Amino acid sequence: MSDGFHYELRARCTTSRARLGTFHTPHGPVETPAFMPVGTRATVKGVLPRDLREVGARMILANTYHLHLRPGEEVVRELGGLHAMMAWDGPILTDSGGYQVFSMSELRSIDADGVTFKSVVDGSHVRFTPERVVDIQRALGADVMMAFDHCPSVPTDRREVSAATDTTHRWLERCVRRYRAAGGEAAGQALFGIVQGGAFEDLRAASVDAVCAHDLVGYAIGGVSVGEAEDLIRSTVACTTHRLPEDKPRYLMGVGTPRDFFDAVESGIDLFDCVTPTRNARNHTAFTSWGKVNVRNQGFLRDRGPLDPECDCVACTRYGLGTLRHLCTTREMLGGMLLSLHNLRFFHRLMERVRGAIVGEEGGLEALRGKVLERSERRVGVDERVEVWRG
Amino acid sequence: MSDGFHYELRARCTTSRARLGTFHTPHGPVETPAFMPVGTRATVKGVLPRDLREVGARMILANTYHLHLRPGEEVVRELGGLHAMMAWDGPILTDSGGYQVFSMSELRSIDADGVTFKSVVDGSHVRFTPERVVDIQRALGADVMMAFDHCPSVPTDRREVSAATDTTHRWLERCVRRYRAAGGEAAGQALFGIVQGGAFEDLRAASVDAVCAHDLVGYAIGGVSVGEAEDLIRSTVACTTHRLPEDKPRYLMGVGTPRDFFDAVESGIDLFDCVTPTRNARNHTAFTSWGKVNVRNQGFLRDRGPLDPECDCVACTRYGLGTLRHLCTTREMLGGMLLSLHNLRFFHRLMERVRGAIVGEEGGLEALRGKVLERSERRVGVDERVEVWRG
Repeated sequence: MSDGFHYELRARCTTSRARLGTFHTPHGPVETPAFMPVGTRATVKGVLPRDLREVGARMILANTYHLHLRPGEEVVRELGGLHAMMAWDGPILTDSGGYQVFSMSELRSIDADGVTFKSVVDGSHVRFTPERVVDIQRALGADVMMAFDHCPSVPTDRREVSAATDTTHRWLERCVRRYRAAGGEAAGQALFGIVQGGAFEDLRAASVDAVCAHDLVGYAIGGVSVGEAEDLIRSTVACTTHRLPEDKPRYLMGVGTPRDFFDAVESGIDLFDCVTPTRNARNHTAFTSWGKVNVRNQGFLRDRGPLDPECDCVACTRYGLGTLRHLCTTREMLGGMLLSLHNLRFFHRLMERVRGAIVGEEGGLEALRGKVLERSERRVGVDERVEVWRG
Repeated sequence: MSDGFHYELRARCTTSRARLGTFHTPHGPVETPAFMPVGTRATVKGVLPRDLREVGARMILANTYHLHLRPGEEVVRELGGLHAMMAWDGPILTDSGGYQVFSMSELRSIDADGVTFKSVVDGSHVRFTPERVVDIQRALGADVMMAFDHCPSVPTDRREVSAATDTTHRWLERCVRRYRAAGGEAAGQALFGIVQGGAFEDLRAASVDAVCAHDLVGYAIGGVSVGEAEDLIRSTVACTTHRLPEDKPRYLMGVGTPRDFFDAVESGIDLFDCVTPTRNARNHTAFTSWGKVNVRNQGFLRDRGPLDPECDCVACTRYGLGTLRHLCTTREMLGGMLLSLHNLRFFHRLMERVRGAIVGEEGGLEALRGKVLERSERRVGVDERVEVWRG
């Protein structure tokens, strides 16, 4: 392994499989468990880099699929790579495009060698193979690249899941070969493998064995939270995570509610990403310590108090809820911008508290979980707002 | 006059009527000549307050008309006033709504007492009178309020201009009476009178006399740049400005190109406002030292260099032009946000240089004018870009 990438296990939780660690990368360390904001087309929507850093972000994501379509990976390379384009000197991870290719099932056809899909930009045909996906991510220049995987559309259809998992393993083999031929980690980028296997414990176990045989820098769990029931997500993540090697970072892809975080952290997950905070913000939904808030609620018209009295973000410390409501109802850009900063701060602050609780702060992880989830999952309105002010 | 408001004349240009000054307000001083960004609905579109401060903004605007419709001035008052809503501790000015009322001529009817117009939000009938406009601006709480004026739609129709100017004077009388009855400047807000008179020097002169008879904190020139020829704008501003008292700030409303600034500054204008920088930014047009740039130009696809090598804003120091183009063509919020910061910085930096040139820097105002206008007014593309890099 190069000096660049290294997972350091710093502490274990005494009541669960949760762990505190540091993922060292060529662009600096990431304290884990960590949430990674999504910057689909080389921008976390509506957020300037300095503000992104200030809400607590360390490692951020960008999407291979979207950047391949526009502006194209060779253009990204000529523009100095993703770090230059995103004006971000911290670590960056690119997904493999696998998820988008499969989530747009009507636009693609799959064969043993790869996937052909229709561009959402201009309708042209685009071809992704494992080799091509590695090449694209090399050009994008993120710290961490993801292997090209096949995410089955229904995690409970054993025949489909089994075939997709086999494909994932064959494609991983080809990704690794291409990756190593181009210099591997010594070239400054890490490759993470992705475990599939749907909702079947034996297929997940076999997938862990096949994927981890490649001795990569880190491993991800894919194919989770694609429509299956919540307890199935939880059991799948739990049975997969504890089989992953202890000395490598573990990344649960695309999972994004506070409850999901607690479940996954307790299983030993280190990294998360999701569009939840920014997408909800642009739709004017805020995550707060007192519940999920539709900021456009008419009942907040004259509300001078902060959106979330427990939050230290710019939206909560400099603006009243009534002003945020005004900015959202009049569709001002600033409304979505401020709520994006707030939601991102809420997620990062939650992860800070989770990291503290793993080593016993706030009464430990189980106590923090109860305290946070009891309130944060509620859809709340004006009545609950009154409670906030009564304290 | 209260301690709160005071115009301090600090230096005069030796080659024109330009002057360097400081406009002292209860929310701090403004070095003049100054450009004021427009925050129509209590937000400069797409710009956070800290960034607004950093591009050089000191005094900003908000619009009475739009804020009366949403959220309503009583709500603004309950939310702590405009300074709280805009998270802005510098001075704020509100226009009187006069310009919007008259620019939306199909939606209003005018009588001797005031104006009735149809709300663009819900079609309801809204009534503005001079007294009401003062009351609304009292509730909004800006440092400077503007008198309710009648801006004629055609500045060269003498009969119409004459009638509108008379109306403006009668309404000003009523505004002043209402303003003084509510405590005048001692209540913390200044009232500026607005001079009308269209393109007619004698009507402008008479309007100056009528308006300045009220001995207000400052005076504005309205009804300029409403479609008339450029040399008519220049001569109107020149013949009006030099008649205004020397010991009061002079504000030219809604004027917004670099050439306009030079013309007006040379006539002795101190304050400007315009939506030009932010509106152009959202349409992806940038003002730069080498010309007006359509950032979406395909020729910039692979351009790693800064949008404007002479600019110190975040867009120019942290991003390449090709990245800005990518953000604009993919309609990412960040594109409009970064160009808004850039254009605002361009305008404020221009005014900084103008202030320096008034006291002889850069060879004086005439030399600066030549240097800036020669390039900044050009509509430029890739060919001119090559020139920039050749130097």
